[in-house]
Amino acid sequence: MHTIKLTLAYDGTGLVGWQRQAAGVSVQELVEEACGELDGRAVTVVAAGRTDAGVHALGQVASVSLARVIEPRSLVGAINARLPPTVRVLHAGEVPPDFHPRFHARRKTYRYRIWNAEIISPFERLYAWHVPADLDVASMGEAARAIEGTHDFSAFRAAGSDTHGSERSVFVSQVQGGGDALVVYEISGDGFLRHMVRTIVGTLVEVGRGRRSPHSMTEILASRDRGRAGPTAPPEGLFLTHVEYDEPVPAAAT
Amino acid sequence: MHTIKLTLAYDGTGLVGWQRQAAGVSVQELVEEACGELDGRAVTVVAAGRTDAGVHALGQVASVSLARVIEPRSLVGAINARLPPTVRVLHAGEVPPDFHPRFHARRKTYRYRIWNAEIISPFERLYAWHVPADLDVASMGEAARAIEGTHDFSAFRAAGSDTHGSERSVFVSQVQGGGDALVVYEISGDGFLRHMVRTIVGTLVEVGRGRRSPHSMTEILASRDRGRAGPTAPPEGLFLTHVEYDEPVPAAAT
Repeated sequence: MHTIKLTLAYDGTGLVGWQRQAAGVSVQELVEEACGELDGRAVTVVAAGRTDAGVHALGQVASVSLARVIEPRSLVGAINARLPPTVRVLHAGEVPPDFHPRFHARRKTYRYRIWNAEIISPFERLYAWHVPADLDVASMGEAARAIEGTHDFSAFRAAGSDTHGSERSVFVSQVQGGGDALVVYEISGDGFLRHMVRTIVGTLVEVGRGRRSPHSMTEILASRDRGRAGPTAPPEGLFLTHVEYDEPVPAAAT
Repeated sequence: MHTIKLTLAYDGTGLVGWQRQAAGVSVQELVEEACGELDGRAVTVVAAGRTDAGVHALGQVASVSLARVIEPRSLVGAINARLPPTVRVLHAGEVPPDFHPRFHARRKTYRYRIWNAEIISPFERLYAWHVPADLDVASMGEAARAIEGTHDFSAFRAAGSDTHGSERSVFVSQVQGGGDALVVYEISGDGFLRHMVRTIVGTLVEVGRGRRSPHSMTEILASRDRGRAGPTAPPEGLFLTHVEYDEPVPAAAT
């Protein structure tokens, strides 16, 4: 068996997210079917981040074990030929069999795009959250920086989610923009709770609208209470941009 | 009656182009229905450029005469509320009744986007022509500049089109790109024949692939023979970016 690391981009519009669901089309199912057809047997594909319905990816990482030996570049073409154009394998390479895309990830980066103008461009409607109200981008930036570091992020976790452990390290949390309509939030960390990025963004937009002070982020974090944070921002603005691993991937030879 | 100048952006994917057709949805029909519903009567909307099926616009200009008096900013909101999100009015303003979007246009600018990499991003598939073969961008730029000036563009006109007159002035014709995957062609002129931009791009890509020399553009122009030019590039890469008028628009007060 050969364990293959895949780097994937997908337009999440109309998909139910990474993970298979009872109804609707998932990225996992599309990639498993494409790889399974190629390998002549049912396969399981594991991803670094289980992106939610409507969320996009520029550099999701997944792994699959294949019985057939296929040269990596041919493999990219062969899988893409079996995927819809909304999902693309960008890169494939063999890794040691113990490689796990989620457990071995050192750093994941998400980008969230906000379109801050009265009218949203037809070309942005599926790839940004339309916020027509004036936003104070400097205050949003100050609020964003306040969550950098290692914290219990329970206040920014989807209500009712039951992941064990809610401490995560955020390496970078910053807002760029102002001037034109596009405001971009970027966050890198060692892991993320369910809806964490979108809840942070929903709270940052309340700061930008002057409904909360930038300092409130620290109080919300300390409260560990989801009720204190802002609403969950919509999925269409969110992109999983890249996932980083120790090089070589993984370090241990097998 | 009040003559209104509209600036429009639209995603041409799945539309039959600007002009009404026997089958399929046109931008003209969508805008006429929205304005007609607002004005309580059937209206005609005239555009600066009759974009083809699948072609996009960032700054199309159109005009409509309305009986009702509506403040321009409210008018933008009222029309957009009656349009699908793929078509947006960006600006509306009253102009003298003799304003004609096509006849009074002084300069139109189109942009054509080429994705020059083995794999096309899911986010580019509807907004660029995917050309996986290596392109010599410098040669394309040299070929592009060769058509600047006033020429008979018959060689780059859709076969069988019967517009009177085929002389047009091209003010700017340039290629930008190289390095990453995106190659952008931009052309400004006083008017364009049917399929002219897409036929120029199809020919430039043959130059970029080394199948023609940059100098061949001059010979093709001189031949006035559509058979000498390259294929018509696909519509998804083409954007009507803006249309310029003498200011004030039009100069004459009424």
